Amino acid sequence: MIPPRIRRYIDDNRDAHLSRLFELLAIPSIANRDDDGCQRAADWLVTHLRSLGLQARSVATPGKPNVLAASDAAGPSAPTLLVYGHYDVQPPDPLELWHSEPFAPQVRDGAIYARGANDDKGQLFAQLLAVEAWARTGGLPVNLRVLIEGEEEVGSPTLEPFIAAHGAELRADACVLSDSEFFAPGLPSITYALRGLAYFEVFFRGPATDIHSGIHGGAVTNPVNALAAMVAALHDAQGRVTLDGFYDDVRPLADDELAAWRELPFDERAYAAEAGVAELGGGERGLGVLARRWGRPTLDCNGIVGGYTGPGSKTIIPAAASVKISCRLVSDQDPRQVERAMRSFVAAHTPAGIESQVRVYGLARPVMLPRRSPAMQAAAIAYEEGFGRRPAFIRCGASVPVTELFQRLLGLDAVLMGFGLPSDGLHAPNEHFELGQLWGGAATAAAFMGELARGSD
Amino acid sequence: MIPPRIRRYIDDNRDAHLSRLFELLAIPSIANRDDDGCQRAADWLVTHLRSLGLQARSVATPGKPNVLAASDAAGPSAPTLLVYGHYDVQPPDPLELWHSEPFAPQVRDGAIYARGANDDKGQLFAQLLAVEAWARTGGLPVNLRVLIEGEEEVGSPTLEPFIAAHGAELRADACVLSDSEFFAPGLPSITYALRGLAYFEVFFRGPATDIHSGIHGGAVTNPVNALAAMVAALHDAQGRVTLDGFYDDVRPLADDELAAWRELPFDERAYAAEAGVAELGGGERGLGVLARRWGRPTLDCNGIVGGYTGPGSKTIIPAAASVKISCRLVSDQDPRQVERAMRSFVAAHTPAGIESQVRVYGLARPVMLPRRSPAMQAAAIAYEEGFGRRPAFIRCGASVPVTELFQRLLGLDAVLMGFGLPSDGLHAPNEHFELGQLWGGAATAAAFMGELARGSD
Repeated sequence: MIPPRIRRYIDDNRDAHLSRLFELLAIPSIANRDDDGCQRAADWLVTHLRSLGLQARSVATPGKPNVLAASDAAGPSAPTLLVYGHYDVQPPDPLELWHSEPFAPQVRDGAIYARGANDDKGQLFAQLLAVEAWARTGGLPVNLRVLIEGEEEVGSPTLEPFIAAHGAELRADACVLSDSEFFAPGLPSITYALRGLAYFEVFFRGPATDIHSGIHGGAVTNPVNALAAMVAALHDAQGRVTLDGFYDDVRPLADDELAAWRELPFDERAYAAEAGVAELGGGERGLGVLARRWGRPTLDCNGIVGGYTGPGSKTIIPAAASVKISCRLVSDQDPRQVERAMRSFVAAHTPAGIESQVRVYGLARPVMLPRRSPAMQAAAIAYEEGFGRRPAFIRCGASVPVTELFQRLLGLDAVLMGFGLPSDGLHAPNEHFELGQLWGGAATAAAFMGELARGSD
Repeated sequence: MIPPRIRRYIDDNRDAHLSRLFELLAIPSIANRDDDGCQRAADWLVTHLRSLGLQARSVATPGKPNVLAASDAAGPSAPTLLVYGHYDVQPPDPLELWHSEPFAPQVRDGAIYARGANDDKGQLFAQLLAVEAWARTGGLPVNLRVLIEGEEEVGSPTLEPFIAAHGAELRADACVLSDSEFFAPGLPSITYALRGLAYFEVFFRGPATDIHSGIHGGAVTNPVNALAAMVAALHDAQGRVTLDGFYDDVRPLADDELAAWRELPFDERAYAAEAGVAELGGGERGLGVLARRWGRPTLDCNGIVGGYTGPGSKTIIPAAASVKISCRLVSDQDPRQVERAMRSFVAAHTPAGIESQVRVYGLARPVMLPRRSPAMQAAAIAYEEGFGRRPAFIRCGASVPVTELFQRLLGLDAVLMGFGLPSDGLHAPNEHFELGQLWGGAATAAAFMGELARGSD
């Protein structure tokens, strides 16, 4: 049970909490802008964390600064919790579609509207409010390590060496981050698996220049046709990826997972509408939609180009064509093994008259977090305290690279404690975050800290 | 035998002939430019044709003017010959690669250098010089109809209605045009078959917008993957096109054609170098290169685009993708039948979740000209007179739409009497035309007129 004083601290000072969050939301901290927005947001966070009794500093990186903070006030017998968040936000464009200024936060219809209201300033603030509630009402039950990143929205290009270099400072017994969402309104959710990624571009080069398709058609291998044949061969008739050994290390879906997913309020037609398609498709035949999105690896072309792409016609055999291909991977697939298989596959599907090349743009391992760990159980109890309902355990088809870095570099399984809702408009105009999710999130985060401390008694 | 006076007229006045050709070459008559270059070239031709005793005029079209001329001086018992050429030329870009100004013609190393020196002002001038030689030395042996087009290099967009409207004026017993080339230096060639064309663009549309490939990958049909699968299915493992009925109307290659082609001085490695490829490929397995380029239909992608094509990676399932596909057709394929087959094929290869559309950019019939007609035989004799060697009868993989229009609208089988050489640099910087080809071409054209008249005696 969360101490009543914690709940009161959160609920009785809502205006003061909001005005502090609004200060942070008013700072346009966009990682790919060459201005001082990120530094100002980092400085604000350092000041705020110090006001809560933590040792805090902004640390320069080759890109935008990260914020590090720590507290050992709970004493050596208390567990240490690492809290992660990011202060950088997506650019607000297109500005004309916003109903209020993206960096002038306001409350409308029970929700905060601003760029970053949810992702991730709002969700991070729920965690910080939990810290504040404990710190101001008798003291923190856990020791804390805090890492707040400034380049999440641009792919965390400098995070891996940063974590590696600050490993000792970040050592902890548990880890939490709030940068995900409920499966549905009223249904708290903990994400326990994320897909990895292997991203390639394949180049096919034929004639030295575009050549006349009438004069030469039939005598010269066409790079576009050859590339299409290669791409088509990457799937079999059952929708399975044909790369050598692709499924060898895929962990079968557990019966209890599938059973749990069947209980989720998932409506295929509503989902298709959300994805913007008339009909669902793709993936392996014979599997359900959630299994295909969450539990199975995929291969998708992300872009293709070759030859003449202007209006009307041009009668050429193109000199070259290329395709971007990415695989989403699930545990225990190894992206380096996928890279080897892709290189072999492309070589085997490069016909006479074509020179091929494979470029690798990114390899990220899939992440599987233990659903039954003490931290996960503590989180489940905390959600019940904060939102009155046990969370669903779900997977996610996307990647959250920091989760994999924590696991690989620090040996820490993060708890992905999301407070957002699917309709919050992340990365879009009119991003918002419901006040109920903020207050419930802060209570959940506070309860999680209490549960962690209780569990280690 | 060509009368010696004709030969003398051509050979004894070379400087005067060249200075007249240079006047025409100096006019930058580029069809897609919005200036008076084309009108000036047309006016020059009208004046020149009138000076040879023909009735000539420039005729306005929705685009650039055409020149029409006629002479009935040979009398009602003489045959009538239609001579076609085009005065418009390709743009000269890139200018910096020219060694002399493209519209300041000059002779270097026995060749005329200028844009249009070959294509088609130079070759057309060989025909006009033949007319001049006859007209100035006793009179033309044939009646003449002349059509000189101003939009050939931009695809003759207004030629079909023009020929249809002027059918009576263009009526003739034979037709000749010099806008092609020798198979090799020293080997005169008559082209007796051209491939037709059916040009499509196929659009595949999936999600309403690009969507996240992690969140949705496996649940949504990817338009790029689906389009690649469609394109790949257009050929079987033998390189044959799989469109329904595609080969039904293809005339088998005659044994004597194949035997004749085997005699041609064709070197596959030299050809591969000319096409700019390390190795030949494409077309149907088990057929020779010339058979694949000249005698069999093909299907080539001319361009493809979809999704993210910038540098690096973007993790999206693209909203759409499209591909330009053109078939080269041989007699007696009907492009409208190919269109029907393509539409059925695309519909059958449009998976759930994709909306497809087929746009048609052009349908042109293949052309087959009788190799043993009196006009062809006259041309063969004429080449022997002009160049001392019987011509090879060859096909061409490209299309020359006017040939098909003459056949379909006027019932006239053209003689494609080329004087160019493969190395003349058509459409490229430093286009040129060898003087020997010009004088030999004029003698050949003159001999052809003589032979036609003799044949009708």
